Amino acid sequence: MKNKLIYKYIFNDLIAFAVLMMLPMIVAIIYKESVIPFFIPAIISLGIGSLLNSIKLNNKTLYAKDGFIIVALAWIIISIIGALPLWISNSSSLIDALFEAVSGLTTTGATIFKDVEVLDKSILFWRSFMHFIGGMGVLAFVMAVIPLANNDKSMHVLKAEMPGPSVAKLVPGIKKTLFYLYGIYIGLTVIEIILLIIGGLPFFDSLLTAFSTAGTGGFATLNSSAATFSTFNKYVVAIFMFLFGVNFNIYFLIIMKDVKNALKSEELKAYIMIFVFSVLFIFINTMSMFKNLGQAFTESFFHVSSIMTSTGFAVGDINVYPTAARILMLVLMLISACAGSTCGGFKISRLVILLKTIKRELLKAIHPSSVRTITFEGKKVDEDTVRSTCLYLLLYAIFIVVIMFIVSFDKVNFSQAVNATFTTFANVGLCFDISNFADFSILSKIVLSIGMLLGRLEILPMMVLFSDLKK
Amino acid sequence: MKNKLIYKYIFNDLIAFAVLMMLPMIVAIIYKESVIPFFIPAIISLGIGSLLNSIKLNNKTLYAKDGFIIVALAWIIISIIGALPLWISNSSSLIDALFEAVSGLTTTGATIFKDVEVLDKSILFWRSFMHFIGGMGVLAFVMAVIPLANNDKSMHVLKAEMPGPSVAKLVPGIKKTLFYLYGIYIGLTVIEIILLIIGGLPFFDSLLTAFSTAGTGGFATLNSSAATFSTFNKYVVAIFMFLFGVNFNIYFLIIMKDVKNALKSEELKAYIMIFVFSVLFIFINTMSMFKNLGQAFTESFFHVSSIMTSTGFAVGDINVYPTAARILMLVLMLISACAGSTCGGFKISRLVILLKTIKRELLKAIHPSSVRTITFEGKKVDEDTVRSTCLYLLLYAIFIVVIMFIVSFDKVNFSQAVNATFTTFANVGLCFDISNFADFSILSKIVLSIGMLLGRLEILPMMVLFSDLKK
Repeated sequence: MKNKLIYKYIFNDLIAFAVLMMLPMIVAIIYKESVIPFFIPAIISLGIGSLLNSIKLNNKTLYAKDGFIIVALAWIIISIIGALPLWISNSSSLIDALFEAVSGLTTTGATIFKDVEVLDKSILFWRSFMHFIGGMGVLAFVMAVIPLANNDKSMHVLKAEMPGPSVAKLVPGIKKTLFYLYGIYIGLTVIEIILLIIGGLPFFDSLLTAFSTAGTGGFATLNSSAATFSTFNKYVVAIFMFLFGVNFNIYFLIIMKDVKNALKSEELKAYIMIFVFSVLFIFINTMSMFKNLGQAFTESFFHVSSIMTSTGFAVGDINVYPTAARILMLVLMLISACAGSTCGGFKISRLVILLKTIKRELLKAIHPSSVRTITFEGKKVDEDTVRSTCLYLLLYAIFIVVIMFIVSFDKVNFSQAVNATFTTFANVGLCFDISNFADFSILSKIVLSIGMLLGRLEILPMMVLFSDLKK
Repeated sequence: MKNKLIYKYIFNDLIAFAVLMMLPMIVAIIYKESVIPFFIPAIISLGIGSLLNSIKLNNKTLYAKDGFIIVALAWIIISIIGALPLWISNSSSLIDALFEAVSGLTTTGATIFKDVEVLDKSILFWRSFMHFIGGMGVLAFVMAVIPLANNDKSMHVLKAEMPGPSVAKLVPGIKKTLFYLYGIYIGLTVIEIILLIIGGLPFFDSLLTAFSTAGTGGFATLNSSAATFSTFNKYVVAIFMFLFGVNFNIYFLIIMKDVKNALKSEELKAYIMIFVFSVLFIFINTMSMFKNLGQAFTESFFHVSSIMTSTGFAVGDINVYPTAARILMLVLMLISACAGSTCGGFKISRLVILLKTIKRELLKAIHPSSVRTITFEGKKVDEDTVRSTCLYLLLYAIFIVVIMFIVSFDKVNFSQAVNATFTTFANVGLCFDISNFADFSILSKIVLSIGMLLGRLEILPMMVLFSDLKK
């Protein structure tokens, strides 16, 4: 980290983060709770920010490597600061607070709280708000920052995040891009809040549930997650989870009144197909367990939407699901939804590119003379992207194995080791055979936190940071 | 299958197979059992062989595609004929016989028999002998046939099977290659038989155990597998399993008195490193469960050797292993041992190439201008091989998911679905939470049989056959 410009960027993030901490302070004041848990980290955030700002810049240019380091470091520092309110308010131990903050900001939603209903309102607000902030951060990173580096050869690993028309290319200037992006994000959230209130949920719970949905996070205000919601509200949440799993480029195109191109998206079609298949499959696979088919369908629809978009809300006990449903759900966790959304997993776009590549190789084996190019979203996929997509998926598998192996030293059975790893690394939060992470060892909590960050940032930034620190 | 030369090659295999069936007939005569179960399939084999031979050849050339189809079809037809003795002798149902024969010939060792000790001696012999035949078939395929197609662009998918000096290049002519190959294979088997007899095992059991070890199969003559063997014999089997996991090129080099080059092999070093690490890890992870450390070490050494070489003999109950040991064992199943051996899994060479590729990509991300080539066994690995190695590993993962999903419709829990899939697809035979496959559904048995063939033939031949049949 010789490049001092790195610090400047992290400084900007910290100032923004301190400002955002005003909101839970307002909640604390309304509910007559202490503002201290938020005031102290806000001050620290501002302090470090100013300190970084005082470093003299020698006007170097930023390389791709520096970009990775900024992203990785910023997420780690902000996670630490985000954990402080939970720790200072005595809601949890420091390590648990860190796990919870990483889970919040990476929009995972895996919790260390056995009982969330005893928490202060301001702390509940902060948990869900971290999802909302994290979702915005991911969108900015994926939709506005990566495309800028698109000409940089070293960035092709992340190109699969950017299939089809990219936001940065549709709208000139990063500021305007972010303006539209956050407009859609906040707009959808507001609509969800209104619908939830109409569906009978109190304002506070509607607000927080919508925050958690927008970031595809999953922290809930009730121990029963969304199980006690009205049927109307269950569908509201399920549909909005689905909507936040759509590539934000699609919404851009719709705003630009280019609905025709929006609906042409291969990834969107694949998303809908996998979604519909999974809902029907889980419905048929589990319907014998329900008294009426309506409830069976609601739960299938809700849980597929929740798992596939890596949100993690629940309306029933998925632990009673048959083995086939479990395996499908685990696969859905890893695939997740569209690139260019706030979802986790490795994204449908990468799966589509992989399947097309396999098909091509098979045809090549049968007809050695054939030369075929792979197209996706109407554009030719260059060989660099093909290769790095494959490598990304393999790296993904390797990290799953490594994390799972370390977690297996904990007091867990095989299924728990698999589920804990999948649900954190794919940023889901909900899983089988684990209701919360309170009783995991400190080692597991640290490793799973690193896993959440790795999964959220598409692996590479964290790897570059670690290899830079090693030097 | 328009190319009639395909039938000619399959015909040759069938004649050879009929001849090999003479041996169990001799065993049947010695033990005064019926020769009918072997006589009928031998006649059928000869009959079909002659029929195929009568087809007029129009002297076409064979393409890579045809080679794949020959290999895939030959294995399927021979599996069916190999199943007949079990069925005709009333040892099992037809579907069970098919599963057992596929398991035998693919050197998997997963069995549908709950009690093998009640089987006829000739049937026991046939089961283990199928391992021995299957091992020879794989060696011929991997060591003698693939290198011939090395110049063919379409074969690079299988190139990772051929790192370093290849047998076909060390010895001129495919016949001479096979002569040396089978010389080493049979030679090692004979040494094992002698050592097992010295160790106190009866001749018949020594013979069959050595057959099963040579093919890295794992069918045993006792229900307790190798648990009642003397400690000396446990080590004999463990060491020979390890030896049959070594790339046969290494033995060639040793015979050619090029020990220096043999010991330079990167894959061999990686094999030994992973092996030693795993033995020590399992030893430390499980030693508290044993009365004395000697026994703990014997079991760790034996089971790591058995799992890693995809053999599947057991000397104790691995179901009591802690979660960490289980996960390590599952990973070892998939990695398996060296390319150019009779082992299953995706082979250490592919793992090494993958890790080197990931390292290069990471360095590229940090220093975009850097250009690096990957070397393995002292030779440059071309980009086609890198790409197809990655694709092979991803195909491997996809097939695991698909097979696991279909098997999960059976009466199995999550762990059983995972283990059944891993142990068959990686051709291991031993696994956790499943002692035999008797109670699996017909669908599962068929899918797992296809899985064993896919895994054994490195996926591609089977895929080419199926896509050819679809037309």
